[in-house]
Amino acid sequence: MAGTTHAPAPAGAALDDEAVALDRAHVFHSWSAQGAVAPFVVAGGSGSTVWDHAGRRYLDFSSQLVNTNIGHQHPRVVEAIRAQAAELTTVAPATANLARGRAARAVLGHAPDRFAKVFFTNGGADANENAIRMARLHTGRDKVVSHYRSYHGNTGAAVVATGDWRRVPNEYARGHVHVFGPYLYRSEFWATTPQEECERALTHLERVIQCEGPSSVAAILLESVPGTAGVLVPPPGYLAGVRAIADRYGIVLILDEVMAGFGRTGSWFAFDQHDVVPDLVTFAKGVNSGYVPAGGVLVSEEILATFDERVFPGGLTYSGHPLAMAAVVASVAAMEDEGVVENAAAIGTDVLGPALTALAEAQPLVGEVRGTGVFWALELVADRGTRTPVGADVMGPLKAACLRRGLLPFLAENRVHVVPPCVVTPAQAEEGVALLAEALAEVAPA
Amino acid sequence: MAGTTHAPAPAGAALDDEAVALDRAHVFHSWSAQGAVAPFVVAGGSGSTVWDHAGRRYLDFSSQLVNTNIGHQHPRVVEAIRAQAAELTTVAPATANLARGRAARAVLGHAPDRFAKVFFTNGGADANENAIRMARLHTGRDKVVSHYRSYHGNTGAAVVATGDWRRVPNEYARGHVHVFGPYLYRSEFWATTPQEECERALTHLERVIQCEGPSSVAAILLESVPGTAGVLVPPPGYLAGVRAIADRYGIVLILDEVMAGFGRTGSWFAFDQHDVVPDLVTFAKGVNSGYVPAGGVLVSEEILATFDERVFPGGLTYSGHPLAMAAVVASVAAMEDEGVVENAAAIGTDVLGPALTALAEAQPLVGEVRGTGVFWALELVADRGTRTPVGADVMGPLKAACLRRGLLPFLAENRVHVVPPCVVTPAQAEEGVALLAEALAEVAPA
Ligand SMILES: Cc1ncc(COP(=O)(O)O)c(C=O)c1O
Ligand SMILES: Cc1ncc(COP(=O)(O)O)c(C=O)c1O
Repeated sequence: MAGTTHAPAPAGAALDDEAVALDRAHVFHSWSAQGAVAPFVVAGGSGSTVWDHAGRRYLDFSSQLVNTNIGHQHPRVVEAIRAQAAELTTVAPATANLARGRAARAVLGHAPDRFAKVFFTNGGADANENAIRMARLHTGRDKVVSHYRSYHGNTGAAVVATGDWRRVPNEYARGHVHVFGPYLYRSEFWATTPQEECERALTHLERVIQCEGPSSVAAILLESVPGTAGVLVPPPGYLAGVRAIADRYGIVLILDEVMAGFGRTGSWFAFDQHDVVPDLVTFAKGVNSGYVPAGGVLVSEEILATFDERVFPGGLTYSGHPLAMAAVVASVAAMEDEGVVENAAAIGTDVLGPALTALAEAQPLVGEVRGTGVFWALELVADRGTRTPVGADVMGPLKAACLRRGLLPFLAENRVHVVPPCVVTPAQAEEGVALLAEALAEVAPA
Repeated sequence: MAGTTHAPAPAGAALDDEAVALDRAHVFHSWSAQGAVAPFVVAGGSGSTVWDHAGRRYLDFSSQLVNTNIGHQHPRVVEAIRAQAAELTTVAPATANLARGRAARAVLGHAPDRFAKVFFTNGGADANENAIRMARLHTGRDKVVSHYRSYHGNTGAAVVATGDWRRVPNEYARGHVHVFGPYLYRSEFWATTPQEECERALTHLERVIQCEGPSSVAAILLESVPGTAGVLVPPPGYLAGVRAIADRYGIVLILDEVMAGFGRTGSWFAFDQHDVVPDLVTFAKGVNSGYVPAGGVLVSEEILATFDERVFPGGLTYSGHPLAMAAVVASVAAMEDEGVVENAAAIGTDVLGPALTALAEAQPLVGEVRGTGVFWALELVADRGTRTPVGADVMGPLKAACLRRGLLPFLAENRVHVVPPCVVTPAQAEEGVALLAEALAEVAPA
């Protein structure tokens, strides 16, 4: 079971050493100073557990990068990939392919009626790129308003470096405007209640749009629940208020469901819980749990009409890749048949919500708990009054204390994100919170 | 065999219809007006042949999007994907993973010594994004000079839409400058010989850099052999001359080998044939023939040093994805063991070169033939004197005439790109050219 440690098998330990040695010799790591990289080996996994070659097992409270919603190595999804691999791994996007058509139908089956087609990409960044492109061409406007506390992907230059005609309609390198979103615990609006935070965040958004010139704004691009920024579940009414502002000024509303979608929040899409329907939805991660790289954009009828006779100037070699699509079809079907989204919701309501609240009450390091489904964050503070975030002197030892206990955590700045797979069992969720409580007790100032 | 047509099996024909119906109902297509999409069904493939569900077979002279260098469904690569799928499909990039380390070692094994590490991405666009990011941070400069006739990928906005700290060092949305490259058949420099074209293109490049201000130029980003633009093999000395200009002004030279690399030109990297070593190399496609989406950047020691203690502000969820990496390891090994790169070179020298030259002599529609390895283009002209490109009135019927003969062509503007897999046999290469000759004769004005 996760959380226990076996005596390392010698052959396994040698493979772990080889993995680290090859990694340090040849692999350039993201978001890191290369001299400081000290990678953790993952050799295999099942459900909510991963292990290294030596047989050390960890309860995965990270879902890797919050993507293995269906858990590790779900047999039905693995089998679908293996079957498609034997048939046809790759094909050009301009062709028709059964796996791709079925994947599009499966994803649209969980979206509101107004969405008619899917544009597939390799991941979240290029999903957002293409959604922004659609919004700009649909509106004939340039600016994109998004939150300061947000992450939408790492791309941003290649098409402007492109020299042929595909560059010309894409030269939208400027025109990005940022606003503050609702975040009551560290309010930018001097608010003291969720309702006040919501109203003031909407006023702020609308004032910025008015000052930028509404007729220059193509899109409002928001994560339905900002994830990497700290699982900032919006207060009731915020997203519906944003929708009203977008409508007032003819602005396209893009909701980024890359991290929040496909069960993470306890519903298929996070916006399902917020009484709002966007114009474009971007997704990746949970759509097939990242078993094969995939992402995409759900396109509404109105925006589709813009590109019926007009060329859409975007594309990529692996759009609708058969192997990725087979994984989407199997993953969505398994989530439906096994009640994976319902499980995520119940884990949130019955286990993680109560357990993390109790942990926060007992442990003064925890300044706030927030979340839904299997999407939670604990904000760690040096002082509950001032809400001063803890630093690396706490977070470094906390990571080590978790790993030593067989818990693989997701840490960001001064926060612990509690983001296990959507298939986590009640017992595993409880066990993980108990291990986290022990680790926090170990690093808490005496 | 490819080129022959069987009577459609009824069950297969129904699946083809289903594939087209689902596609038209639910799939949004790249680089197209959605109303005009009429997709061709591909159900499976082997080597240089693909087929639909009804059993119609086609000789693939496109390699899909010029990516299936090792051919369709190479058994060793398929088996590696299936084995890795059973073990571990996905893992976070911050971990160490054997498949990833081995893939990096395999790719570096064919690169010049100065390259020490690999940053993996999902495809070619994000490889270029990250190479540009490295060049800008390494030089502290902004501008990127690239060719008008080039394609580097479709991304260009998501990181500027990102609101958190990762946006700040990446706000390089401006600063893209374009120059003309060598292209003697349609010279921009009034040149009449390859040597003159080369010298004038280098003078033009250097003059633009001087006028932009050399100390503002971070990178020169070029396809070693511009591919989509028309297989514009550079004249001898051009790339070495660009290297000298880059050195003179402290500019990073990025060569994009996304389409040209991994055997396409008859060598592992296209620049191997041009006596030049760049500072960064981007790759995708042929590295694993696109069996699982993958791309990356080869990073030289000097640029690595910049990121030893400084955080590299780029990344993506599926960087170094195990399934993609297993396909890289198997694909590079199979290419080594089976002499795939050598085969591509021999096909170019012994079959495609002579056969296409003979075709051009016999068929007045062909204005120029150029290429190397399995990377060729025929430029079709209405008049050999004026070199006026043919239009859609020729290209549309030509596509139909090829498909009717069981030949899957790659057509771009007024050109036929002859780009079969690197494993194409001499007999298949000859057969394909013969079918193309027939199709050209059919559409040629009487
Ligand atoms: C909300 C959100 N959008 C976009 C992305 C980018 O996705 P990818 O890493 O697949 O490009 C991420 C990745 O974490 C994300 O969390
Ligand atoms: C030279 C070159 N660079 C980059 C790309 C973009 O690669 P991708 O489609 O994988 O993003 C392509 C795609 O055709 C290419 O040919």
